[in-house]
Amino acid sequence: MTQMSNPDDSRFEKGREALARIDGEAGQKVVDALKDIAPDFARLLIEFPFGDIYTRPGLDLRSREVATIAALTALGTAAPQLKVHIAAGLNVGLSREEIVETIMQMAVYAGFPAALNGLFVAKEVFAARGV
Amino acid sequence: MTQMSNPDDSRFEKGREALARIDGEAGQKVVDALKDIAPDFARLLIEFPFGDIYTRPGLDLRSREVATIAALTALGTAAPQLKVHIAAGLNVGLSREEIVETIMQMAVYAGFPAALNGLFVAKEVFAARGV
Amino acid sequence: MTQMSNPDDSRFEKGREALARIDGEAGQKVVDALKDIAPDFARLLIEFPFGDIYTRPGLDLRSREVATIAALTALGTAAPQLKVHIAAGLNVGLSREEIVETIMQMAVYAGFPAALNGLFVAKEVFAARGV
Amino acid sequence: MTQMSNPDDSRFEKGREALARIDGEAGQKVVDALKDIAPDFARLLIEFPFGDIYTRPGLDLRSREVATIAALTALGTAAPQLKVHIAAGLNVGLSREEIVETIMQMAVYAGFPAALNGLFVAKEVFAARGV
Amino acid sequence: MTQMSNPDDSRFEKGREALARIDGEAGQKVVDALKDIAPDFARLLIEFPFGDIYTRPGLDLRSREVATIAALTALGTAAPQLKVHIAAGLNVGLSREEIVETIMQMAVYAGFPAALNGLFVAKEVFAARGV
Amino acid sequence: MTQMSNPDDSRFEKGREALARIDGEAGQKVVDALKDIAPDFARLLIEFPFGDIYTRPGLDLRSREVATIAALTALGTAAPQLKVHIAAGLNVGLSREEIVETIMQMAVYAGFPAALNGLFVAKEVFAARGV
Repeated sequence: MTQMSNPDDSRFEKGREALARIDGEAGQKVVDALKDIAPDFARLLIEFPFGDIYTRPGLDLRSREVATIAALTALGTAAPQLKVHIAAGLNVGLSREEIVETIMQMAVYAGFPAALNGLFVAKEVFAARGV
Repeated sequence: MTQMSNPDDSRFEKGREALARIDGEAGQKVVDALKDIAPDFARLLIEFPFGDIYTRPGLDLRSREVATIAALTALGTAAPQLKVHIAAGLNVGLSREEIVETIMQMAVYAGFPAALNGLFVAKEVFAARGV
Repeated sequence: MTQMSNPDDSRFEKGREALARIDGEAGQKVVDALKDIAPDFARLLIEFPFGDIYTRPGLDLRSREVATIAALTALGTAAPQLKVHIAAGLNVGLSREEIVETIMQMAVYAGFPAALNGLFVAKEVFAARGV
Repeated sequence: MTQMSNPDDSRFEKGREALARIDGEAGQKVVDALKDIAPDFARLLIEFPFGDIYTRPGLDLRSREVATIAALTALGTAAPQLKVHIAAGLNVGLSREEIVETIMQMAVYAGFPAALNGLFVAKEVFAARGV
Repeated sequence: MTQMSNPDDSRFEKGREALARIDGEAGQKVVDALKDIAPDFARLLIEFPFGDIYTRPGLDLRSREVATIAALTALGTAAPQLKVHIAAGLNVGLSREEIVETIMQMAVYAGFPAALNGLFVAKEVFAARGV
Repeated sequence: MTQMSNPDDSRFEKGREALARIDGEAGQKVVDALKDIAPDFARLLIEFPFGDIYTRPGLDLRSREVATIAALTALGTAAPQLKVHIAAGLNVGLSREEIVETIMQMAVYAGFPAALNGLFVAKEVFAARGV
């Protein structure tokens, strides 16, 4: 991925490490899938969300994943990304129960269908991870 | 509010305590504002979100407020409730910085306008609370 | 509004009658407010939603207003139009109670904030109408 | 499902009856699918939407299903639940035509794609039901 | 499709020509798919979006497709229609690069998941078109 | 704003120039309003949307503003940002008519309320700008 480097190498490197630590292989798969359609978007995805946001102090990674799982469940338009971030939640130390509670709570703020659809995504991720 | 009691007194009582602890006066104001339009909805609001959800074990209240602040910022359709829950976040021990980080992160998942509008709601709440 | 007439006079006339019967003065105010920004949009608003949709057989006007009140409450992005259609619901024979129940039910499908915001819009309309 | 019973048996029993009457087997399938991921959410789904909301007087079941079909079509994020509620609409006496009209009307409030996607869900349900 | 004709033949004819020019076969497929569920909706789809809107002067077709691709990407609830309009963008002269840039920009306004999902729809359309 | 500089000065400088050229004073007001709540978010807002996205080749600024106006109108949750970008559209050479057409077209994709609310925002901006 050296072709993606730019003068702002530190953000890219920080982002790449954060992406690997948080999303694991799933993050790399998204980056790879972008190669022939929008390679610059892969770079921006690494630099801004991961290089700029997830590496900020002030909020621990577990809370950051609670926030992301909650938001993606509530929006209801991002099942593939919710899947990645439920796995990311496990990666950074959230328990299965904490993830399920976060999703259930969204019934209050975005309705039961949003929570149901989120729970079924979680069911799939937990099965694949054997947790 | 004795007129709201029903056979299921324990959920209502648990919910009322949770609402007071989490939302403080702001929660009671919402309940009061519903009295002449939909008093039963005030009871349901106390029983389901607060009696059933926020009192569940498995996710601490700080994480529950991170989830709610994230979701309401991302949805962008619930400024009055976001205001209540930013105050609730402070009530249950989130720092000003943790709340700001949660909202900023939503730029990644729901766009910059959602995060900006959330930050300006937070600014108003922090000013009112003197934090 | 003769300047808005077009070859398709029957849709426009049917729509204008439907708009007046359903939305009353509030509909006319919207049409007037569009005059200096997008007069053609006023014509399209009369022709498509009112001339083409609300005048169709197969669903009575009361049910049409239940559908509209439900959808606008759930979307949460259209308070001015929800206000017009809560008044329209009263115009076509829905009771205050039926409107409140429709909005409350949206807590299940779009979350409590959506329902709360809808109820407060209804409260305002009922106060203005003295019902 | 005796393991789901709680002190508030009447809400659960009322909800279970309402769920069976309205959603039929489809409702039970959702409850079953939740068993190994979030069994408590199955109980909450029965108690709040069905025990608390659908059993309320003040709005007939046909109108409640018009409201739900309208809202889920407009939101556009809940195809599985829209499917269940189009079938539920038929169960409580809505005609095929009334359901189609409700969905078509959403073009006005949520755009043509929302209405189109809703109509294609309805087409699938009607085919399965042979109506 | 003569059964769809109505007194307002000019709008229908104008719309049919615009639909064919912009959406090509994909538009006709949608119209055909509506035949047994909601044939009138096929007529309305031709008359309002295509007969009334896309044929208006004041904004060129390339800009109209930029607007539609942007909006459908941002909403995130209309993948089938986004697919049709990415192809339509190519039909009216947008380059592959202009379409990719439009979708990427939506990361700013609707978040990275919306942009990612839009890019993957574009990837599929470009592959099918061999561009 | 020297306190906002970081090692990645070129993105920040490029972004600041783009922000000034596109959004004019309105952009600076947003940056200033963030100073006491989230100064880093002001920097990120300049660097990512303006430094990284708007300065990319491959789509002209007029088309970028058509895309943004369309998306913000369709989402319906970002009136303050829509206001800024309708003014930005005028700044980069869109005519009043092109902006109105872009917003009207959103009735097709996000419904009439979204288009109406967008038109009323435009009316306000045009009045303030005297166009």
